[in-house]
Amino acid sequence: MTRQENKKKHKWVHKDLLGLEYLSREDIELILDTADSFREILDRPIKKVPALRGKTVVNLFYEPSTRTRVSFEIAAKRLSADVINIATETSSVRKGETLNDTGRNIEALKADIIVIRHNCSGAAAMLARHVNISVINAGDGWHEHPTQGLLDIFTLRKRFGHVEGLRVVIVGDIAHSRVARSNIWGLTKLGAKVTVCAPPVLIPPGIEKMGVTVKTNIDEALVDADAVNVLRMQFERDERNVFPNQLEYFKNYGITMDRIKRAKKDIIVMHPGPINRGIEISSEVADGTNSVILEQVTNGIAVRMSVLFWLSQATKKIGHEDID
Amino acid sequence: MTRQENKKKHKWVHKDLLGLEYLSREDIELILDTADSFREILDRPIKKVPALRGKTVVNLFYEPSTRTRVSFEIAAKRLSADVINIATETSSVRKGETLNDTGRNIEALKADIIVIRHNCSGAAAMLARHVNISVINAGDGWHEHPTQGLLDIFTLRKRFGHVEGLRVVIVGDIAHSRVARSNIWGLTKLGAKVTVCAPPVLIPPGIEKMGVTVKTNIDEALVDADAVNVLRMQFERDERNVFPNQLEYFKNYGITMDRIKRAKKDIIVMHPGPINRGIEISSEVADGTNSVILEQVTNGIAVRMSVLFWLSQATKKIGHEDID
Amino acid sequence: MTRQENKKKHKWVHKDLLGLEYLSREDIELILDTADSFREILDRPIKKVPALRGKTVVNLFYEPSTRTRVSFEIAAKRLSADVINIATETSSVRKGETLNDTGRNIEALKADIIVIRHNCSGAAAMLARHVNISVINAGDGWHEHPTQGLLDIFTLRKRFGHVEGLRVVIVGDIAHSRVARSNIWGLTKLGAKVTVCAPPVLIPPGIEKMGVTVKTNIDEALVDADAVNVLRMQFERDERNVFPNQLEYFKNYGITMDRIKRAKKDIIVMHPGPINRGIEISSEVADGTNSVILEQVTNGIAVRMSVLFWLSQATKKIGHEDID
Repeated sequence: MTRQENKKKHKWVHKDLLGLEYLSREDIELILDTADSFREILDRPIKKVPALRGKTVVNLFYEPSTRTRVSFEIAAKRLSADVINIATETSSVRKGETLNDTGRNIEALKADIIVIRHNCSGAAAMLARHVNISVINAGDGWHEHPTQGLLDIFTLRKRFGHVEGLRVVIVGDIAHSRVARSNIWGLTKLGAKVTVCAPPVLIPPGIEKMGVTVKTNIDEALVDADAVNVLRMQFERDERNVFPNQLEYFKNYGITMDRIKRAKKDIIVMHPGPINRGIEISSEVADGTNSVILEQVTNGIAVRMSVLFWLSQATKKIGHEDID
Repeated sequence: MTRQENKKKHKWVHKDLLGLEYLSREDIELILDTADSFREILDRPIKKVPALRGKTVVNLFYEPSTRTRVSFEIAAKRLSADVINIATETSSVRKGETLNDTGRNIEALKADIIVIRHNCSGAAAMLARHVNISVINAGDGWHEHPTQGLLDIFTLRKRFGHVEGLRVVIVGDIAHSRVARSNIWGLTKLGAKVTVCAPPVLIPPGIEKMGVTVKTNIDEALVDADAVNVLRMQFERDERNVFPNQLEYFKNYGITMDRIKRAKKDIIVMHPGPINRGIEISSEVADGTNSVILEQVTNGIAVRMSVLFWLSQATKKIGHEDID
Repeated sequence: MTRQENKKKHKWVHKDLLGLEYLSREDIELILDTADSFREILDRPIKKVPALRGKTVVNLFYEPSTRTRVSFEIAAKRLSADVINIATETSSVRKGETLNDTGRNIEALKADIIVIRHNCSGAAAMLARHVNISVINAGDGWHEHPTQGLLDIFTLRKRFGHVEGLRVVIVGDIAHSRVARSNIWGLTKLGAKVTVCAPPVLIPPGIEKMGVTVKTNIDEALVDADAVNVLRMQFERDERNVFPNQLEYFKNYGITMDRIKRAKKDIIVMHPGPINRGIEISSEVADGTNSVILEQVTNGIAVRMSVLFWLSQATKKIGHEDID
């Protein structure tokens, strides 16, 4: 089936985007196909379409995240939606309002879509169960960050023309990474072969059940890889012995030009950002010809436009109960 | 006189909306009538009208308040206005600029309407005296919060078809509540019968002069009430003996299903939000069929659209001096 | 050559606006001429033009500054651009991302113009070298604040009809003022005679090389001045002996009605704001008939619209390398 046919035949039925775990291969391909069209708009002098005119998107961020908030804000504005930013620092949350009450209030304000970032896994799903409007999970604890997963997959597909059969290595703190989880769900559904690579302590037990291969040696992992997705190491959260850990991590797992040279010639290097130069990736690689890190940022706008578009289009919507 | 006729005949002449104390019954009805029209727009797929295109609304918030700020922001955007948010945390206020200088600067930026939230009673009126553009009081100390009063009255009128003769109980910290004061001014002007109910220490001396009945027993107060407006208890501001007070308050004044069952069958329960479940209101009541709390939130958008509309329309404007 | 002819003949070729040091007289006059047109739009009922529709302006502020941020935000919205605000408090900067990476990410988001405020001199120029999109310096350390300089010059030209030959005194902390530096570069290029006046300790050595006269006695400096630009004294940054200094400064350099009365009758008094009443300027002067302080605020919108317009129009763009 060609992409055009897929676009015609498959129907988007989800009220929410909570995680790639709950989407079908056809759902994901529909989002990617529409993102292709939006991606072209971004290169025009006037980068705006009227698809969501008169709609309101609320960015509800319980964790600070300029990157993701700004990406969603730009995506929504390019679709001509109005955007309201709510950050916890100034919100009613300080007055003890529950997440569900906050959500129901936003629904009562006649907003159309809530984009939520929260430090608790499952927060987006809980919110989605309590409101009738659409909810997009922009990262919930260690659970999922589905639009990051989608933009990573979109970037791969744009580079290689397909996802099926691609060998993708995800390196870094797999255990605490919602980016890794969303990538794994999405990539395996689309037929890619995923390897996760990290020191044993950063690999969650039983991860193989998600359909991935586990390797602890990065050089081995990279041998036949088409792409490596480098996770951000959050050493700033580890207050003990930071420096020795960092040096050791970079030596054993850092993506350096040396390692890239030993990999496939056209391997691509991805990173969800913001990058730590010299910690999980060398500057040479981050700024080099194999890096698609900034393409990912651009693609993120197109993918988020596509997600906002489909959530606002769904006529018959499937609620949360179908995914639990 | 029908509402249509009222709409045709009565002219809005106020530069500012500082409090319901300074409006006539006709002024209030004009705002409510126009809010009726805007309320319908909110149920359309494209919830936007061009009434304030090219106008700029500045939200100037000296107290954090996501709810009110977001409500005004959405209302203004639905009218196609541009919205600028200024929160004190990042404002020139930190550099010691006076409120009047800040206001005159906003006027010089050619903004059209300032929405101000301030912890000092009278701040909005002082600002209004020093600028020629419109000022909306979004809550000033313990003084007034007129758009909250208007949206509460709008909600009553929408439910009962009229306000005249309705029996409304306001329960909670009357002494420190700008919401109570705006409701009392507005409701009594429109002919409702208002009872305030609280422990004696939370009732300001002389409140009867505003035309209300005082009761300290909530069960007595609710006997023939058509509506009860439950104020938020701000126990978080009271650092001494919080827990015993909370329990005792809930026992004596909390709006529980038990109390609602003993009241009129179709009594409506209102709350300005955010609600404290189990402190001033039980979850059962807040989420029950008598509750119109979320309707109030939706109506708030319509009422604020109406206020923004009329302030931007006033051709001959009466200044502050007429209200002092 | 008339202004009309200048507008037709001179071509804007700069990718960025980093400082008035790097502009020609013709560049400056082109911006001022276009600002004249935009200034008229600000008095219309609908203050909006479609010039930047579909463009995105990012306000990237590493120092809090409500005034400048709001001025740029309004200017951009009046041109129908979308505006994204990023303040360091919630940005990736906290996660250790470099300024250049932040800039390249904003570029990858397909934004068109970055407005940057930073506490380091040269930050805007560094950013401009690393991105292909336009950068506007909204104040970098003690270096330049070119749009403030332009709006000051615009205000002078609007009042006097010309800049050539005007005698302008700048009084205050010259050594630490980017406003002073931008004014000096711009005013001298346009043929004004600039005098700087301050206690010797606040005058940077060698400032005469910029083409200005130095005076330490304000009364002497004001004798034949057409305008005095009063800098904000930032005593709040000086934690030692604040009070005596303030009193002494006001006595020796404060712009009082007494001093203004001894100056030329139509001298104009300017201030970049926010003003410290009774510290560098008396309330009587700030609110008096010689003051153009609020006109400056209004003119700031027009000038910033003009800068945004020209940067978005430049077809063949000269990069940073031409100005180093």
